[in-house]
Amino acid sequence: MQKIRSIPLLAALLGSVTLLPLPAFADSAAIRDAALKDEVAMAFTEGLTTEVGPRPAGTPLEARARTWAVDRLKALGFANVRAESYTMPVWLRGRDEARVVSPFPQTLVVAALGNSGSTPEKGIDGEIVYFPTLADLEAAPESAVRGKIAFVSHDMRAAQDGSGYGYFGAARRQGPSIASRKGAIGILIRSIGTDHHRVPHTGVQMWAEGVQPIPAGALTVPDAEQLVRMVSRGQPVRVHLTLTSRTLKDQPSGNVIGEIPGSDPGAGIVVAACHLDSWDQGTGAIDDASGCGIVTAAALQVAKAGTPRRTIRVLLAGAEEVGGNGGRAYFTAHGKEPHALVMESDFGADRVWRVDFKLPQGQEALGARVAKALAPLGITASRLPAGGGSDIEPLVEAGIPVIDLQQDGTRYFDIHHTPDDTLDKIDPEQLRQNVAAWALTLNEVANAPETWGKN
Amino acid sequence: MQKIRSIPLLAALLGSVTLLPLPAFADSAAIRDAALKDEVAMAFTEGLTTEVGPRPAGTPLEARARTWAVDRLKALGFANVRAESYTMPVWLRGRDEARVVSPFPQTLVVAALGNSGSTPEKGIDGEIVYFPTLADLEAAPESAVRGKIAFVSHDMRAAQDGSGYGYFGAARRQGPSIASRKGAIGILIRSIGTDHHRVPHTGVQMWAEGVQPIPAGALTVPDAEQLVRMVSRGQPVRVHLTLTSRTLKDQPSGNVIGEIPGSDPGAGIVVAACHLDSWDQGTGAIDDASGCGIVTAAALQVAKAGTPRRTIRVLLAGAEEVGGNGGRAYFTAHGKEPHALVMESDFGADRVWRVDFKLPQGQEALGARVAKALAPLGITASRLPAGGGSDIEPLVEAGIPVIDLQQDGTRYFDIHHTPDDTLDKIDPEQLRQNVAAWALTLNEVANAPETWGKN
Repeated sequence: MQKIRSIPLLAALLGSVTLLPLPAFADSAAIRDAALKDEVAMAFTEGLTTEVGPRPAGTPLEARARTWAVDRLKALGFANVRAESYTMPVWLRGRDEARVVSPFPQTLVVAALGNSGSTPEKGIDGEIVYFPTLADLEAAPESAVRGKIAFVSHDMRAAQDGSGYGYFGAARRQGPSIASRKGAIGILIRSIGTDHHRVPHTGVQMWAEGVQPIPAGALTVPDAEQLVRMVSRGQPVRVHLTLTSRTLKDQPSGNVIGEIPGSDPGAGIVVAACHLDSWDQGTGAIDDASGCGIVTAAALQVAKAGTPRRTIRVLLAGAEEVGGNGGRAYFTAHGKEPHALVMESDFGADRVWRVDFKLPQGQEALGARVAKALAPLGITASRLPAGGGSDIEPLVEAGIPVIDLQQDGTRYFDIHHTPDDTLDKIDPEQLRQNVAAWALTLNEVANAPETWGKN
Repeated sequence: MQKIRSIPLLAALLGSVTLLPLPAFADSAAIRDAALKDEVAMAFTEGLTTEVGPRPAGTPLEARARTWAVDRLKALGFANVRAESYTMPVWLRGRDEARVVSPFPQTLVVAALGNSGSTPEKGIDGEIVYFPTLADLEAAPESAVRGKIAFVSHDMRAAQDGSGYGYFGAARRQGPSIASRKGAIGILIRSIGTDHHRVPHTGVQMWAEGVQPIPAGALTVPDAEQLVRMVSRGQPVRVHLTLTSRTLKDQPSGNVIGEIPGSDPGAGIVVAACHLDSWDQGTGAIDDASGCGIVTAAALQVAKAGTPRRTIRVLLAGAEEVGGNGGRAYFTAHGKEPHALVMESDFGADRVWRVDFKLPQGQEALGARVAKALAPLGITASRLPAGGGSDIEPLVEAGIPVIDLQQDGTRYFDIHHTPDDTLDKIDPEQLRQNVAAWALTLNEVANAPETWGKN
């Protein structure tokens, strides 16, 4: 757990609580108690993961998810429900196979990374050159890599705030481009994950400009450890790798939007975002059906307590995993509308433990009210600025205020982007705590009497 | 943990401890302390799982394991090391694929069970008929099953003594024959496992006499739960199932044997057994490379303490998983030799928590000495009779005394027969506790001054 030191901003936030008269609407205890009994988020998550299942962006599966979500939001009573379409390129997985040819013939479990180059149908065959870290690959001379299959490991560990993902995830995000530049014929990385199961963690990577795509795959953590043991014996290790895939241009995708209309059209919109798409090998329960369940349920919990001042808009983005196309399409269509504040849930459904703020200068009182409402759920305010997530990134970059409800990520990267991302990983009690945290936060924000920005 | 009540036998065992003069050889503390620092078991387990990997019985992979084990036993100083060959039928996995066709199209993760009938290359297509338990399938009329794919679930939970496997495992062992008799075109079972990962638990099943083989597969636990959710919505669920496989006759397999020769050739042989073969999708670390590591290391620990009275023979059976062919071949070759006592390690490498005995009438003092030696390792004597394991079953049935060192099975069926059975599941400290328990037991038995049976 992060140590919170007393700092001026936080002191200001907490110090101001008793000075501000709380608005009459804010019956936090009632909202919290109702949300802690919520059934909508679980039903949403169960329904989407069961009735649609995997839903890669830009595919007919995502289209099914879109139809499903429009129907569900309408049935739940949202206003202005619609799908807003756009097109995008789609990378499609083919066959993922790897096996050690020598000296210890056996199969390895692998998954191609998003945008991986395709091998021929019969695969490729190459000697492994092992790099314990991405820095080792970066430091290696071209002569050590050229014509070989680069194999990059790392030492990511579980962390409550998920902070290892940014640093160690570079092996996935940059590793393939670096390996290709040095002449590798392929790259295998240790899955960016913290588990020990034979389920590979896929994920997107983008080829740097001018770089020739090469086959790029993630071995499961046990398989990567096995390969390290083989390499450490000192004999050349040869691997046969088959990662077929294809890419389609201009495929249809779409965002789903629904609203709880506010009473004051001039007060701006509060966006509660998540993403509908998922990776292809799991059913996307923690990533991100549960996020959509949480924002949907929380918006309804606020509506149940009375018409909010500001419109709450749920944004179920159609394409996040493969590069944030949904968020960009939303910004293109709606970026000029008055957004009061944006939030996103895209880190599973384990309990919210921390809240981060990026509020306009002078709006510390709002943060203090949110922090006070969340405290009974065991959530503490941090001194870190909120950053949002991919689906709201263009809005955040445009300066819209943002609040992050940070979920406990201790087990998130055991499951993330693997076939294991299934409904049984959702803990109903923790999911309800999320709904309560979101409902309380949306309630405070949507009903805040203050004015800021263009609103 | 099982509650041990005071019963006459146990009282007799414990009561007799102080009356018997302990043999001079039995420096239990020294053997225990040395074994708790053992490196042989881990090196054996690491080597076999890395340098050979998966090793299905009767295949070239098992042949590699045999060669590997002969070399390793010789290098470790065992006497009379040899492979003893026999032939056996071999079932070979082909392609395992399942997908829901309607109403919610998506893939399911499945593995064919041993001896499964093969589908055509293009698979079969059928409606699911769901049975929550095997008893429900048994009770169903033929008309409900004929022409459909039976789907059998169960409610197995983790248990320290692994006791759920016998009862719930019947869905795997008997389910396919029952389904075929009722006219099913295939059967899917919920994996006989206690985890929630997308790794299916395979395992052998034998067709009852006169039964037509049908395709028979295990869905992972999350996939089985998903299928239950679909079925529970009330619409017909159709699944496309591709489980190709083939069977070969008379393939070579073999047991590997090595000995610590005893000083008294007339005192009989103590057999310490395990099996070399594994299922095909993992590297067989808990099942049963670690068992072979344990018995090998323990025999050496006893030898280090001095030449034992009785010969200790390690038996690394070549074929256990698919029907105990190795154990039967051993009995055919050696059943008439004077066996003083037999033991087997085939339940992973988590700590030994309990010891069970089946000793000849009048040899309670030996049991008491073993129990006393094991107590400092946290191991308690039970009132349950020892039963041995598949590789020594013919010997046990012939009346040879047996001692079981029961490992903690709480997490065993999370991993058992899955791709997840890999080296990282072995806890080095618990493995060493196993070696110590085995060394202490073998020491007491091999050096016991008593005479029993034909010895």
